[in-house]
Amino acid sequence: MGANSFGSRFIVTSFGESHGTALGVVIDGCPAGLHWDQSLLEKNLSRRKPGQNQTVSARQESDQVEVLSGVYLGKTLGTPIAMITKNHDAKSEDYKKIENQPRAGHADDVWKNKFGISDPRGGGRSSGRETVARVMAGSVAEMFLKSQFPKLQVTALVVQIHNQKVSGPPYDSKTDQLLNDAKVKGESYGGMIQLEIKNPPANLGQPVFHKLKADLTSAIMGIGAVSGVELGSGTDPVSSKGTEFHSEKNSSQYGGIRGGISTGETMLMQIKVKPTSSILDVAKLGRHDPFIGTRAVPVIESMASLVLADHVLWSLQDRA
Amino acid sequence: MGANSFGSRFIVTSFGESHGTALGVVIDGCPAGLHWDQSLLEKNLSRRKPGQNQTVSARQESDQVEVLSGVYLGKTLGTPIAMITKNHDAKSEDYKKIENQPRAGHADDVWKNKFGISDPRGGGRSSGRETVARVMAGSVAEMFLKSQFPKLQVTALVVQIHNQKVSGPPYDSKTDQLLNDAKVKGESYGGMIQLEIKNPPANLGQPVFHKLKADLTSAIMGIGAVSGVELGSGTDPVSSKGTEFHSEKNSSQYGGIRGGISTGETMLMQIKVKPTSSILDVAKLGRHDPFIGTRAVPVIESMASLVLADHVLWSLQDRA
Amino acid sequence: MGANSFGSRFIVTSFGESHGTALGVVIDGCPAGLHWDQSLLEKNLSRRKPGQNQTVSARQESDQVEVLSGVYLGKTLGTPIAMITKNHDAKSEDYKKIENQPRAGHADDVWKNKFGISDPRGGGRSSGRETVARVMAGSVAEMFLKSQFPKLQVTALVVQIHNQKVSGPPYDSKTDQLLNDAKVKGESYGGMIQLEIKNPPANLGQPVFHKLKADLTSAIMGIGAVSGVELGSGTDPVSSKGTEFHSEKNSSQYGGIRGGISTGETMLMQIKVKPTSSILDVAKLGRHDPFIGTRAVPVIESMASLVLADHVLWSLQDRA
Amino acid sequence: MGANSFGSRFIVTSFGESHGTALGVVIDGCPAGLHWDQSLLEKNLSRRKPGQNQTVSARQESDQVEVLSGVYLGKTLGTPIAMITKNHDAKSEDYKKIENQPRAGHADDVWKNKFGISDPRGGGRSSGRETVARVMAGSVAEMFLKSQFPKLQVTALVVQIHNQKVSGPPYDSKTDQLLNDAKVKGESYGGMIQLEIKNPPANLGQPVFHKLKADLTSAIMGIGAVSGVELGSGTDPVSSKGTEFHSEKNSSQYGGIRGGISTGETMLMQIKVKPTSSILDVAKLGRHDPFIGTRAVPVIESMASLVLADHVLWSLQDRA
Repeated sequence: MGANSFGSRFIVTSFGESHGTALGVVIDGCPAGLHWDQSLLEKNLSRRKPGQNQTVSARQESDQVEVLSGVYLGKTLGTPIAMITKNHDAKSEDYKKIENQPRAGHADDVWKNKFGISDPRGGGRSSGRETVARVMAGSVAEMFLKSQFPKLQVTALVVQIHNQKVSGPPYDSKTDQLLNDAKVKGESYGGMIQLEIKNPPANLGQPVFHKLKADLTSAIMGIGAVSGVELGSGTDPVSSKGTEFHSEKNSSQYGGIRGGISTGETMLMQIKVKPTSSILDVAKLGRHDPFIGTRAVPVIESMASLVLADHVLWSLQDRA
Repeated sequence: MGANSFGSRFIVTSFGESHGTALGVVIDGCPAGLHWDQSLLEKNLSRRKPGQNQTVSARQESDQVEVLSGVYLGKTLGTPIAMITKNHDAKSEDYKKIENQPRAGHADDVWKNKFGISDPRGGGRSSGRETVARVMAGSVAEMFLKSQFPKLQVTALVVQIHNQKVSGPPYDSKTDQLLNDAKVKGESYGGMIQLEIKNPPANLGQPVFHKLKADLTSAIMGIGAVSGVELGSGTDPVSSKGTEFHSEKNSSQYGGIRGGISTGETMLMQIKVKPTSSILDVAKLGRHDPFIGTRAVPVIESMASLVLADHVLWSLQDRA
Repeated sequence: MGANSFGSRFIVTSFGESHGTALGVVIDGCPAGLHWDQSLLEKNLSRRKPGQNQTVSARQESDQVEVLSGVYLGKTLGTPIAMITKNHDAKSEDYKKIENQPRAGHADDVWKNKFGISDPRGGGRSSGRETVARVMAGSVAEMFLKSQFPKLQVTALVVQIHNQKVSGPPYDSKTDQLLNDAKVKGESYGGMIQLEIKNPPANLGQPVFHKLKADLTSAIMGIGAVSGVELGSGTDPVSSKGTEFHSEKNSSQYGGIRGGISTGETMLMQIKVKPTSSILDVAKLGRHDPFIGTRAVPVIESMASLVLADHVLWSLQDRA
Repeated sequence: MGANSFGSRFIVTSFGESHGTALGVVIDGCPAGLHWDQSLLEKNLSRRKPGQNQTVSARQESDQVEVLSGVYLGKTLGTPIAMITKNHDAKSEDYKKIENQPRAGHADDVWKNKFGISDPRGGGRSSGRETVARVMAGSVAEMFLKSQFPKLQVTALVVQIHNQKVSGPPYDSKTDQLLNDAKVKGESYGGMIQLEIKNPPANLGQPVFHKLKADLTSAIMGIGAVSGVELGSGTDPVSSKGTEFHSEKNSSQYGGIRGGISTGETMLMQIKVKPTSSILDVAKLGRHDPFIGTRAVPVIESMASLVLADHVLWSLQDRA
C-alpha cells in the first residue's frame, strides 16, 4: 500500500503539490460501464473551492478538471481513471522569500525534518489544496454508489462553530456575523460536523481490522483539520449507563454500525474540527479561514463515499 | 490487503473463533535478529486475561501461547512469526441451544446477515476473545520498538468510568465499589481511556492517507468497545478559539502529531468506550463485565505499538 | 503485501520452518458458505508427501492437517481459515553438528547473508517442506473453484525427465529405472512439466500488471525447483514466423490467454525444472530425490488454483 | 493492490489509453532527496519510441514527458511523482469506422468480453503504447538505483530473431535485411532477448512468495509480447544432469539468484518474444513491426529496474 493510496478495491492514488504543475488522482478498480456524471464532479469541486464567499480564503482557483483516461463516450472503461486540475494561481515567487521561514502552525518543518527537503511554496503537499484530489475521487465513488443504491445520501453538516449551534453551509446571518468578526479580529474557531449517511446498504465492513467504523474513521481523521471522530448520534458514551445506552427506544447511538458492519440503518458520525492555525501566519492574516470546517464538508463526504464504494466492492466476495 | 490483516510493513494477520480450536496470529515483516522476550509476551497476555479480578468476566482461559515459527534460539529469524493459544474453555455444547437465538446487543445477527452463516459459539470471531491475537502481535511490536527506542513508553490508562474520575487499573476502593455494585445490579458503564506515548521517535507517519493520527485512530476504532477517538490532551477543540488553542504555552493539544507526522513530543489520545452490551444478555448477567475498558487497556497499547512498529519500518525509505 | 503472502483477494499467508513446531497457512478472503472437502485436502497432501515411493526422499512426514479456524459444521465461515501440520520427524539434534556447514547447492548461506541469522535445521524456511502450506491453501482454492466451475480441471503432468519423454506420475518401468539408477549413482535430472487447465472461466486476468500470464508465472516461478516458464503448447515462439504462429488452425500457442485475459479455451504452460542440488550434499546421498519435479506436481497445481481463485474474486468487480 | 499498480515499496500506478488524452504514471515511495536526471528519462523514452528506424511502426509520437509533481529544484520530494505524455498523434476518427471490427490477433475482443466495453481506438489500454508509462517509471527507478549502486548495469539485448543469432539494437546489415524483407512480405518473427544485470546488490528478494526470480518473471511476463522467461544463462535445465548442471566451474546457470535471493553475481534471464500479430491486421500491413522485441528492450530494462528498486527498499527491513 502506498502512502498516497487509499482503499483496497476502489483504490485512489493522490498526487501533487499546492504550487506544482497540477493536483491529481488516479482511481483503479472502478467498475466498467458506469455512467460518467461530469456535472456531479464539477458541482462537488465548486463546493470545495475557496473564495466562494467572503469568509473563506481568497485564493482564486479555477479547479477545472481534466479527465486524462478511463472514460470513453460517457462511460467508464474499467481502466484507471486519471484526473488532474492545473495550479493556475501559483505565484511561487511570493514563496521564495519565505523558503527558510517555516510558517507557524503549519507542517512545513515536520515534513522537512522527515524528508530532508520540502516544497516551501504554499505548504507543498501538506497544503489543504491536496483535498481537491479527494473530492475528484469521491465524486466518482458517488457516481458508482448512486448507480447501485439510488436512495443513498451522504451528507456532512456543520452543527456547531465555537459555542454557536449552527446548520450549514450556507449559514444564517448570525453565524456569518461570527465568522466575519473573527476574520477582522484575526481569530479562528473550532467546530463540529455531523456526517449522516441515509439509506446505506447493509452488510458493509470487514471484520476484524477493516470494520466499517475503523475505515470511516481513518478516512476522516486523515483530513488535516480533523482532530476527533465519534460514532453515533452524539449521546455521550463515557458517562452513560448501559441500561440507558442500550435501551430499545434508541438505536442511533450505534451510528448504524454493529460489530463493525453496517446494519442498513442511518449512519451517524460526529467530527471535531480544530481552529485553523492560519491566524499564526502573519502573512495570511485577513485572508485566513476563520472556520476551516466549511471547506471540509465536501471533503468529508468524499472520503465517506470512497470508504462505502470500497466496501461495496469488497462485499462482493462475502459469500460463495 | 486482507480483512484480517493490519499494517503495511509490520504486517499482522489474525485468525480464530472464540470457541474454535485456537486463536492465533502471524506476523510478517518483523526484522531478523531481534531478541525474543517471552516474559513480556506472557505479562501482556495475563493483563488482557479475563477472570483476573472479581469485576471482569469469569471465563477461565489459560491463554498459554505457543510459538509455531519464526523464532530460533531466542532470536527472530526474519521469517513469519506464528503464535497460537488454544481455546481450552470452549464448552460448545452450551452454545448449541442458543444457536438460533442471537444474543441482544451482540453482532451475531449482522455477521449472519453478511456471510449467510456464523459460528454461534460465544460470538465466534466477533467475540472479544479475538483481541488475544492483537496482544500477542502487539507484544512482538513492543519487543521491536524497545530494541530501537529503549525510552519509549506506550501506556493506556482508564481516566473515567461513568461519572467518576479514576486512574487505573488497578483501581482504588471507591471505583471497585462502583463496579461491584454495577455487577450486582446488572448495570454497565462507559468510560474514557487516555493513551500516552512517551519519548516517541519523530518523523513517523506518511502523508497523505497514512498520517499517524489516521493509522492510530483506525487501529483503536477497530476495537469492538471503542466508539470515539480524539487526538490530544482532551482540550475541547470544538468550542475553542484559535488564539487560545494555538497559544505557545500549550502544545499538548496537538497530541504530539503535526501535519500527520510525529514531532517527538509526547503523544496523547482520548478514547471513548461505550457501556458493554452484555447486560442485555440474560444468560451472562452476573458474569458480565461492568466496564469493558479495563480489559481494553492492553489491547489499545498493543494496537498502538503495532502502528508505531509499522511506521518505523516505513520511515526507513523516507530518504535516499 | 507481506513477503509470505500471495494473492490480492483470496490471500494466503504461509509460515513455518522445516524443523520448527509446525508448518501452516492462513487463508483470508475465502467466501463463506463453501462446502469443506476434507478428503480433497488430504488427498492432495498425500500426493505431495515424500517417501511415497522409492525414488523420492525418505523422510517420513505424517502431514496430518489440523484446521484451527474458519470452518464450522462443514462450511467455511468467511473468517480466516488457518491450518497447520506439525513437524513430527524433526530431529534437530542431527542438524546441530552441521550448523556451521552450509550445505552445497542449498540456500542456507544466502539466507544467512541476508538476515544475519538462519535456522540451520533442514534448510529452515528455505526447505521444500514449506510447500506443504501451499498445497493446504491450494486445496481450499480448488474447493472454491469446483463450487463455481464444476468442469474445471487443473492438471500438471511431467512430460520429460532428462532426455526421456515421460507421462506421469506414476511413471512406466523405463522411467522408474532411470530414476532408480540415478539414485544409486548419485545423479539427478532436470525435466519438463506441463500445466493444463481445462474448461477454465473466461475473463480472468487484470490489465496491465496482473495479466493472468504474469500472475500464473509468478506463482510457479516462486517454487524452488522451477527455473523457467513458458505460456502455450510448447511451439517455439523464438524461431517461428508470425504467418505460421498466428495461423487459425492453431490457437493453443496462445495458451488460452490473450491480452493477459483468459479466453475460456484450455490453458497451457510449459514449466522447466532444474536438477536437484541434493546430490552435492554428501549427507543426503542415496536419500536424495533424483527428480524433484515429481513432488512439484501438486504444488504447481495448488499455485495455479490459488491464482485462478484470486482472479475469480477479482473479476467480480469488473462491471458496474 | 490495484490491477494497474506494480511493486510493494517503490509503487508504480500506470494509466492511460492509446488514443485518450494522455498516458501517465504515478510513483509512490521514491525516497526524497534523489537527484532528478531528466536526460536519462528522455534518453530511455526515445529508445522506446516507434518510428525511430524503418523497421518499426511508423506512428509519430513526441513522447514529451511532463513532470506534474514530486520533483522540486532538481530533487525528489518524497511525495508522489506523477508524469504524463500527451497523445498528440491520436486520430480517433480513423478508429470510429473499425469500432465494431475487432482486429485479428489483438485483445480488443477479450477486453470487451470482460468489461462489456472497450476503447476501440488503437487498442485502447491494451495498446503497446501503455509501455511508455513503464519506461517513465523505470527511468526513475534507474535514477534511484544508480544513486545507491553506481556500478549496477541493467541491460537487455536481442540475441536471436527467427533463426538468426543477432546482437542489438542496433543490428548489422544482415539483420536489417531480414527485418526489411519481413516488412515487405507481411511477415513477422519471434526472437530471444537476454537480460543481464551486472554488479547487482546481494540479498535482494523476499522468501517465499516474493523471490527475486518470481518478481522479475512477473514483471517481464506482464509485457504483452513476452511468452516465456527462463532464469540463467540459457543452459537447458530440462535435459541436463545434476552432476553437470551444478558443477563448480559453472555458476551462471543459477542466474545470480539462489534460494530466491540475489547472490551479488551477474544476473541473467532469457526472454522469449512471440511474433507480432499485427500481420493479421490488414489496416496495419506495411506499417507493422516485423520484430516487436526491438521496442521491448527498454521496457524490459525498465521493469527489471522497478523490481530491483522495490526490493532494495524492501531489504531495509531485513534486520533489526
